[in-house]
Amino acid sequence: MSNTEEIRALLTERVAALGRRDATAANAILDDDLVAFEVSGSLQVSSAQARGVASTQLWLDSFEEGPNISMEELTIVDGGTAAFCHSINHLQGRRHDGQAVDVRMRSSLGFCKRDGHWKIVHAHTSFPR
Amino acid sequence: MSNTEEIRALLTERVAALGRRDATAANAILDDDLVAFEVSGSLQVSSAQARGVASTQLWLDSFEEGPNISMEELTIVDGGTAAFCHSINHLQGRRHDGQAVDVRMRSSLGFCKRDGHWKIVHAHTSFPR
Repeated sequence: MSNTEEIRALLTERVAALGRRDATAANAILDDDLVAFEVSGSLQVSSAQARGVASTQLWLDSFEEGPNISMEELTIVDGGTAAFCHSINHLQGRRHDGQAVDVRMRSSLGFCKRDGHWKIVHAHTSFPR
Repeated sequence: MSNTEEIRALLTERVAALGRRDATAANAILDDDLVAFEVSGSLQVSSAQARGVASTQLWLDSFEEGPNISMEELTIVDGGTAAFCHSINHLQGRRHDGQAVDVRMRSSLGFCKRDGHWKIVHAHTSFPR
């Protein structure tokens, strides 16, 4: 597989893991030194926070249906030992309180190849202000 | 110069160009195929919009002092033929109406080397919601 194909496969696996609410599998692709710019909260969060399975699981468990994530307009740019991608992520689902979720947000990810495996070292997710 | 040094120099040039309100010089580093996720407005903007010197100049000309931009915590990850960086951008200045501007936002940039020159092909700028 080419680097681009490997990264596309990893993203497909991550989205599938989130869809079955498996935080451990979803976060396995996140690097130890991840720098994350999250949708809400502080400007940036530490690697420990961003990689924390407990908080990801808490978010996933708030869904009754989903979350189903579709990475629309996904573009992967491979540089050899590092790569990045950007997409519009369509998030759909239903919370336990019945509230429907159907939003599109912007996602940019940075990857490094560590010991032959691609890891996410940077994640930026946002809505326009 | 290493790729990382070249990219750092380009970013320094771009910030300096913005500081002297020279939209043409500032936007010269933007690739023809730029995909931009801007702070406000629509989810993504076309390359033509994002690279438009007129709209950048209009924004720059709204400042009486500045804009002074400092790229804090800048991390550049070089992959060889592509690279990315992330930073917290501290924007300071004063508008013609006297309003002070002093904000920090998140910036992620994706680069490709085209004919030996680094260009920004992806830009994502945001505040947390």
